[in-house]
This record gives sequence, C-alpha cells and structure tokens, in this order.
Amino acid sequence: MALEIYWGSGSPFAWRALLTLEVKKAPYTSRLMEFSKGDLKTPKFLALNPRGKVPTLKDDDFVLSESLAIMAYLDRKFPEPPLFGRSDRETGRIWSVTLESSNYLEPVDQRVVAPIFFGRAAEKADDIRAARKDLHSELQNLEQKLARQQWLATASLSAADIAVYPFIELLLRAAGKEEARSLNLGLLPIGETYPALAAWRDRIKALPGYDKTYPPHWRQ
Amino acid sequence: MALEIYWGSGSPFAWRALLTLEVKKAPYTSRLMEFSKGDLKTPKFLALNPRGKVPTLKDDDFVLSESLAIMAYLDRKFPEPPLFGRSDRETGRIWSVTLESSNYLEPVDQRVVAPIFFGRAAEKADDIRAARKDLHSELQNLEQKLARQQWLATASLSAADIAVYPFIELLLRAAGKEEARSLNLGLLPIGETYPALAAWRDRIKALPGYDKTYPPHWRQ
Repeated sequence: MALEIYWGSGSPFAWRALLTLEVKKAPYTSRLMEFSKGDLKTPKFLALNPRGKVPTLKDDDFVLSESLAIMAYLDRKFPEPPLFGRSDRETGRIWSVTLESSNYLEPVDQRVVAPIFFGRAAEKADDIRAARKDLHSELQNLEQKLARQQWLATASLSAADIAVYPFIELLLRAAGKEEARSLNLGLLPIGETYPALAAWRDRIKALPGYDKTYPPHWRQ
Repeated sequence: MALEIYWGSGSPFAWRALLTLEVKKAPYTSRLMEFSKGDLKTPKFLALNPRGKVPTLKDDDFVLSESLAIMAYLDRKFPEPPLFGRSDRETGRIWSVTLESSNYLEPVDQRVVAPIFFGRAAEKADDIRAARKDLHSELQNLEQKLARQQWLATASLSAADIAVYPFIELLLRAAGKEEARSLNLGLLPIGETYPALAAWRDRIKALPGYDKTYPPHWRQ
C-alpha cells in the first residue's frame, strides 16, 4: 500500500508534506480534504488524527501528524536527496532555520494573512500594521541568508526551504488581494522589495513535481 | 575547545539543551546567563545570537540557537544514545510528540505558568481558568502514552521526553506556589492526578547528570 497523504488546499503545513513527497519522488496517494465540508471532523478522520488537522500521513498501519515530523519521517524512509543534512552542522543549521520559522516568521505571517483571507482586514488593520515591522524583520533575515547562498540553510535544497516556502507564498497571495491594498504592506512587487527571496521562490517553483503541490483552489 | 552552552536558570528551552548534553555525556562549559542582569542583551551575546535568547550553543566557530535544533545537532555529533530514533517510525513518532508539545502543550502551559511566576495570577485568573481544560487535555494525552510505555515516544528515552519534561516541571512549580492555590488547577499531588506522568518524571530525575541541569535559583 502506497503512502496516503491527507491534506487541504492552501494549508501551508500540508504543502510542506506534499513538497517533501515530490522532492523525494515517493509514490503516494493524495487524499484531498475539504475544510468547508467538515472532512477533518468526521469520525473516520478523527480516528486517524484526534486533533483533526492536516497534514496527516498514513503508511500502512503507521499514522503520523505534525508537518515537520512527517518531513523527518520521509527523510529517513527515503534518504535521497537528504533534506535534514549530511553532517552535524548541516543538521543543526537546517533545524535552526526551520524552527526560527515556526517560532518567529509563522506567527507574524499568520497575523497578517489570516485577517486578509477571512475578510477581516479592515477590522484588524491596526494589528496588521503593528505586525508589519516584525514581519519585515523576519523577511530581511531570510533575504540576507539568500543573498549569500541559493538555499536557506545549506548549499542545496533542505527541509528549511520546504518549511518556510508555503508561508511566503501565503503572504504574497494575501498581499495581492484587493483588501490588502490600503494596508501598505510593502511587499509587492517581491522582485523589488526582496530580490534574493524572489529568486529563491522561483527556484522552488521550478522543482520537479511542484505543480502537483500547488493549492488547487488558488488556480480558480 | 569544548562546547559552550549559554543558558538561563529556569528557562525550559535551555533545560532541554543541558539535559541533552548530560545524557550524551558530552564535555561542555556552562555559561550561565543572568536574565535580570541583562546578560542576554549585551553586544557580546547579541553577536552570538541576535535574538538574545537561550539556549545558544557554541562549538568552536559554529553557533547554534533554537533548543530543538541544538538537540538535533548534539544527537548527530554524539550518536549514543540516539535521541531521535533508530528507525523511520521512531524518528517520526519522536518528532511528532516533540512538535505536539511545541504547538499545543507549551502555549497553554505558559498561559498558566507565566502569570503565576510574574505575580499576575489574580489579575489573569479568568484566563488561567479558561486554559485549564486545554491544559488537562494535553496532560491526559501524555498520561495515556505513559500508561502504555515508560517513555513518551519510544521504548527508551528520546528527545520527546527531554523536550516535554521542563514544561511539566515548570507547571508543577507554579502549581505549588501560594498564589496558585485559589486557581484550583487540579494538578497536585501529581502522583494522584497523573500517576504515570509522575512515575515518568521520577525516571527523568534519576538520569545521571540530572542534578547539574536543575535550575540553580529553584534550590534557594
């Protein structure tokens, strides 16, 4: 039985799992869950993941949640290309960049993105503006890394790139919405505001299999 | 040059790094930073870690932050005993439990602990009571795991145990404070409320080197 990946369109966490599967060229069955239909709250899905979250990976009788744990599992099961480093220092750097994303970039990214996506940009405008400085500080941090090297943590693509990427894509999609215009986020065009980040984004988009991971409802 | 670990007394994140160093029997130099003296905001320390956080590890010219990244680095540098698993499934389980701690236990743990430690228990009483249900749900989750096996993720001590442990200890210390009495946290005595968790806690405390990791200001 192939791996089954339960995911949702536009979930940055689920996107990480799909990108990892594609980069590893691992055979998998896609289980696209519809948030709006309550797919994550069915007894069947809650039996797999009691928290009702995606991504959830099923590999025969082994079920795993938490996007970074799924990535670590897949990296051990499919060693090539290694995504968590070839040496102690690479492993340390990759996890450090990945966890800095979880602890600093993602919270401030969500503070900006969520209200825009959920029609509350006007109501939350003050909070979004308050988050801008921290957001740009995190983006500047990434920009500096990418001005020195092609990938975030090591000389080749690593889990850090895959972990960070969906949050950048979400942010840029939010920034391009009509409701975001008056917020003056200072993000677009990304090629001018953060050129190294923009070039890195293009490198991710050029990965084989990338198209299969793109949120289907974003194409509509 | 030995490893240098910059840490602070009572930081649960720093505690993880110290426990890992002891479990690995890695030689290290302790650099105890005093939060109250501003040790984390000196130019010298900010040059090592621009975010001014502990733990920070220095290994010759290699500097690393983020507690879980430091653990992953040490695990690769000192392979025995392995803390991130001996197989793909072990690795997946360990990271899953570790990241569930980061994403669910820690936020609710901090919501209860921080106001008690910082003299704001009365002011924040409603929020603390609101957090109680989620906190107990996470503790019950750990209790169920530990009722089945001695360690949280695998048959032997793993990074998951080391990652979770300091947050349990912080919580129990907060629960024992005079200011916590009226909050009815329902945690003490832990041997009665969560017997499997209490037995696991005793196993951690019995680890060789544990005493060297105990927050020095808690002894006073």
